[in-house]
Amino acid sequence: MRKINFSAGPSTLPYEVVKQMADAVLDFEGTGTSISEISHRSKEFMNVLSEAKSLVKELLNVPDGYSILFLQGGASMEFLRIPMNLLTKDGYGAYLDTGTWANKAFKEAKGIGNAVCVASSKEDNYTYIPADYTVPADADYFHCTSNNTIFGTQIKHFPKSPVPMVCDMSSDIFSRTIDVSQFDLIYAGAQKNVGPAGAVLVIIKDEILGKSGRYIPSMLDYQIAIKNDSMYNTPCTMAIYMAMLNLRYLKNRGGVAAAEKYNEEKAAMLYDEIERNPLFKAVAKKEDRSNMNVTFVLNDPEKYTDRFAELCSKAGIRDIKGHRSVGGYRASIYNAMTKENIQVLIDVMQQLAQEK
Amino acid sequence: MRKINFSAGPSTLPYEVVKQMADAVLDFEGTGTSISEISHRSKEFMNVLSEAKSLVKELLNVPDGYSILFLQGGASMEFLRIPMNLLTKDGYGAYLDTGTWANKAFKEAKGIGNAVCVASSKEDNYTYIPADYTVPADADYFHCTSNNTIFGTQIKHFPKSPVPMVCDMSSDIFSRTIDVSQFDLIYAGAQKNVGPAGAVLVIIKDEILGKSGRYIPSMLDYQIAIKNDSMYNTPCTMAIYMAMLNLRYLKNRGGVAAAEKYNEEKAAMLYDEIERNPLFKAVAKKEDRSNMNVTFVLNDPEKYTDRFAELCSKAGIRDIKGHRSVGGYRASIYNAMTKENIQVLIDVMQQLAQEK
Repeated sequence: MRKINFSAGPSTLPYEVVKQMADAVLDFEGTGTSISEISHRSKEFMNVLSEAKSLVKELLNVPDGYSILFLQGGASMEFLRIPMNLLTKDGYGAYLDTGTWANKAFKEAKGIGNAVCVASSKEDNYTYIPADYTVPADADYFHCTSNNTIFGTQIKHFPKSPVPMVCDMSSDIFSRTIDVSQFDLIYAGAQKNVGPAGAVLVIIKDEILGKSGRYIPSMLDYQIAIKNDSMYNTPCTMAIYMAMLNLRYLKNRGGVAAAEKYNEEKAAMLYDEIERNPLFKAVAKKEDRSNMNVTFVLNDPEKYTDRFAELCSKAGIRDIKGHRSVGGYRASIYNAMTKENIQVLIDVMQQLAQEK
Repeated sequence: MRKINFSAGPSTLPYEVVKQMADAVLDFEGTGTSISEISHRSKEFMNVLSEAKSLVKELLNVPDGYSILFLQGGASMEFLRIPMNLLTKDGYGAYLDTGTWANKAFKEAKGIGNAVCVASSKEDNYTYIPADYTVPADADYFHCTSNNTIFGTQIKHFPKSPVPMVCDMSSDIFSRTIDVSQFDLIYAGAQKNVGPAGAVLVIIKDEILGKSGRYIPSMLDYQIAIKNDSMYNTPCTMAIYMAMLNLRYLKNRGGVAAAEKYNEEKAAMLYDEIERNPLFKAVAKKEDRSNMNVTFVLNDPEKYTDRFAELCSKAGIRDIKGHRSVGGYRASIYNAMTKENIQVLIDVMQQLAQEK
């Protein structure tokens, strides 16, 4: 029996993609080898990488002049690659502090050079997205996090930035239409809407590179990665293949616009229940709440925690516990989470309220 | 039909492990989620990581005082992590230059600080392992590469090192018994004898860390990785799981000593044929030749290349082409390559000679 997996990442993927991946582990598209065994330099795998890049370009309508990379190390390695590539000796990076990961990105930049925080909601435990700030015109770049996985907030409108805009879209890329031309660097750890853990997707405007004046180690240098088409060393072949399958699935189901509509409807179902249900309340400020990670708590945890856990477990729900820094619950409802599965959670919440 | 895959990495894995992995992609050990979807913080995955570490410790007889890590970025990221963690401001790393990868490790260290090359076989296109050198007693560390995948050479006897000895064992770890206590840091990209691409195994003596006096970015800091048990950020879950399955398989088949005996017999079969067969000759110097990557060329490539390719293809052999810097052929015969499959290659070589 397949569980209803609300994990924040690695997270649920379409079962059709999972089945295709299992097939490719046994025999990768008739090559007589497993996708785990095939050379990254084989023409068969080169085709996979090429299709994965094409799908990213098509699904997000990436303009010319941008490179698409699949690297290793997760978003956390990008926290380092970004200042190494973009931060000049005397300049500074401007960071919007909207959550744990945004803050880690900021700290990593400060280890390399200068970085300033333009606004933060840390004092309110990141329950909202700061609105009252200006992106400084003399910064080397502006860094923001489109969706805060832990706190369940999401930037609904991106600022106009007079300097290159860098965005960590790890937990909401491919979930809504975006105008890539607004951004100069987009990155996303794969393990939510892209595929399994092990790859990080980077979309980068070529012209912003080569200006930091800094020595950049080979494995951190975007220009080396671009020149070698993500193959300066052995890439994470299985993760890239499964990401390709998942993006192909997204395309066949109507692409990002269709996913966005479905995601809005899904999130509304769950937020409506949280508002309606007397036992629960939402964590994030209403206008900033995320369509990907729905954070909520019990009003009386002492009374209901055990029974709610029991009902969830009986219904086949797993990994709905909130991050320790927020507590309560977090339902991560990425592209692959279905309305039917969200309805199961809503039914459980309603049953708990009826038992009261 | 399963092909005979001589790829240098990613490379062939035991079919039993491949089948177990395919099962876990569909449903990971009855959890109701795919191994590609399960949270790295779940108790089920924590058990996987724990078993993988225990297997490494047991199979290599790793002494206490060493930490075992599964990181991301491949061996190439270790080329950077090593000087970042071990190289002092005024000190230097001593490097043995035995091949393309050894040389890349050396260059990466020179980007961070001082590094010297103690000996090199570059002028002879790395056909042998230099023997005439001393490890300098004032270096911060000594770096060597146990097996040179591209050139088919292997260090048979490691030097006594008066300073911490660091070894890239990417292409021969788990293929032969080693005395881990001789080394202070061992690392290996997974995609040969460990598992699929996406993870790099690091075995490190704790006491050598924390002495470089250098600022180390979080994702490059071994002490942070150790403190967080390889989970400072999301690890490459699928690769770690498959590595665990593969190490479990190795243990069940008699461990490293049994693999070593089998590997010696396998390599002897193929080298004997290369010596016997009038059409072929070996590339590497006899006493330094690798039991993992067998490099050889046709004496008359113009005459036999096409027919040899045709016979190989008919026999179900793939990815036997040599690296462009050596040419000819490279049969990578890691732990999972069977004698039966090597016999198929030998039969093809003999048929070619008979047709002459």
